[in-house]
Amino acid sequence: MNTEKDILAKKVVEKMMQTDQFSKWLGIEILEIKDGYSKLTMIVRKEMINGFGTAHGGIAFSLADSAFAFACNSDGKMTVALDVSISYPKAVKENDILFAEAKQINKTNRTGLYLIEIKNQHNELVALFKGTCYKTEKSLL
Amino acid sequence: MNTEKDILAKKVVEKMMQTDQFSKWLGIEILEIKDGYSKLTMIVRKEMINGFGTAHGGIAFSLADSAFAFACNSDGKMTVALDVSISYPKAVKENDILFAEAKQINKTNRTGLYLIEIKNQHNELVALFKGTCYKTEKSLL
Amino acid sequence: MNTEKDILAKKVVEKMMQTDQFSKWLGIEILEIKDGYSKLTMIVRKEMINGFGTAHGGIAFSLADSAFAFACNSDGKMTVALDVSISYPKAVKENDILFAEAKQINKTNRTGLYLIEIKNQHNELVALFKGTCYKTEKSLL
Amino acid sequence: MNTEKDILAKKVVEKMMQTDQFSKWLGIEILEIKDGYSKLTMIVRKEMINGFGTAHGGIAFSLADSAFAFACNSDGKMTVALDVSISYPKAVKENDILFAEAKQINKTNRTGLYLIEIKNQHNELVALFKGTCYKTEKSLL
Repeated sequence: MNTEKDILAKKVVEKMMQTDQFSKWLGIEILEIKDGYSKLTMIVRKEMINGFGTAHGGIAFSLADSAFAFACNSDGKMTVALDVSISYPKAVKENDILFAEAKQINKTNRTGLYLIEIKNQHNELVALFKGTCYKTEKSLL
Repeated sequence: MNTEKDILAKKVVEKMMQTDQFSKWLGIEILEIKDGYSKLTMIVRKEMINGFGTAHGGIAFSLADSAFAFACNSDGKMTVALDVSISYPKAVKENDILFAEAKQINKTNRTGLYLIEIKNQHNELVALFKGTCYKTEKSLL
Repeated sequence: MNTEKDILAKKVVEKMMQTDQFSKWLGIEILEIKDGYSKLTMIVRKEMINGFGTAHGGIAFSLADSAFAFACNSDGKMTVALDVSISYPKAVKENDILFAEAKQINKTNRTGLYLIEIKNQHNELVALFKGTCYKTEKSLL
Repeated sequence: MNTEKDILAKKVVEKMMQTDQFSKWLGIEILEIKDGYSKLTMIVRKEMINGFGTAHGGIAFSLADSAFAFACNSDGKMTVALDVSISYPKAVKENDILFAEAKQINKTNRTGLYLIEIKNQHNELVALFKGTCYKTEKSLL
């Protein structure tokens, strides 16, 4: 059973995803969207690798950033990232399957705090992302 | 006139860049490499855009992350990012030309701190990136 | 029942706390110490207030930083903070009772990642702290 | 010669400092206040030391946080910290004289980004602090 807020969240993210060219390039698939929450997955491809033969730091970041954007915009009011930080407990490799889960830690009228965990196919934490955002009054639908 | 350290830095980054598939996809061009320093540029393309019609947050991050990697590995010892944070003072748009400049703030035997500024073609700051890294004993050349 | 590692953790923190003048000034009391884990409490006093009549941002930070230090040094090898970030979901007031809980997210031979939550007496999250540390080879006992 | 904005900044900070008990305990002295800018100093005392015999991480943080607060509130509208991060290039010791300089990197109607450097009496960088804030509509004077 979905609440009205969860149904709104799905509509908002569906619309955002339609024009999100970079999330499409990353191959991001949406696993679950709820109010203030998102779960995404993607597979690490050859063109995402850096000079050390592991995934470029921007790949896990970008997946987390999409999860963050979907979670913090899920109420339908345009919300932008102000500051985010990411830590990398473990290297990501080609063909790894990544799962990002974004959870709302705090929300006020205008600001929000989210924590996004990225795990690989072995359920190992590969990145921890903390995001602070600012909510505008612009409607997304 | 280049010092020996700057010549080493160029060699290391040249080698890293050869196999850095994602930096190539981003279209990153190297403007300058010195010991503990890098300056890069790239143009924001259509496939880098997010659901709001501006550049995905992962694009400026990835450019900064490459600049960080080149600067902190420039002494030829493999160095990995531990934690980074990024702030976004201004939105980035399609066709913007981005310039990333990475400077070493601190370096010990095993750890380092770098600050990376990203500016657009109007010399406006669009992202400020702070990176903390850990240096292994593995040689890159 | 305590494991050997937990017993070591208690000894290390007991020794650290003996000479930790600032944690004493803050009035920090240790609620629990285990390997890679700490739980602390303190009461916000009048001299900890800022110009807005709420607790100075340095107070919640300092409590979290002590919790971080106790958790990441609990294996007896001297460990220092490299970079930390803190978010403030809710203001802290005079006479609030704060509880800090530090959990180890990741640990390698030389580096570590910890997450510290600070809650008030109403179980509301007032600060979220993410810490990255570097472990030296120096023994603490 | 001061601009009107700089005169306002001095008035605002003077008022904030009057009731800022913790900044007083730290022994913070104001060296310079301008619109979006502050420079502070303090001396590290015995009661600010941690279990390793160096300054507790909360001390440099608190000095930076006060410098941040003074700089971002200097336009007279109450502004609160959302997320800050700090890196520690060098340990701080008892009797060290610290100097914090806060600079405005970006400012919009509602949000701001500041960078605060802390140096010791030898002009060595001991902490680098990045702060993101949110501006309310409440007037401080």
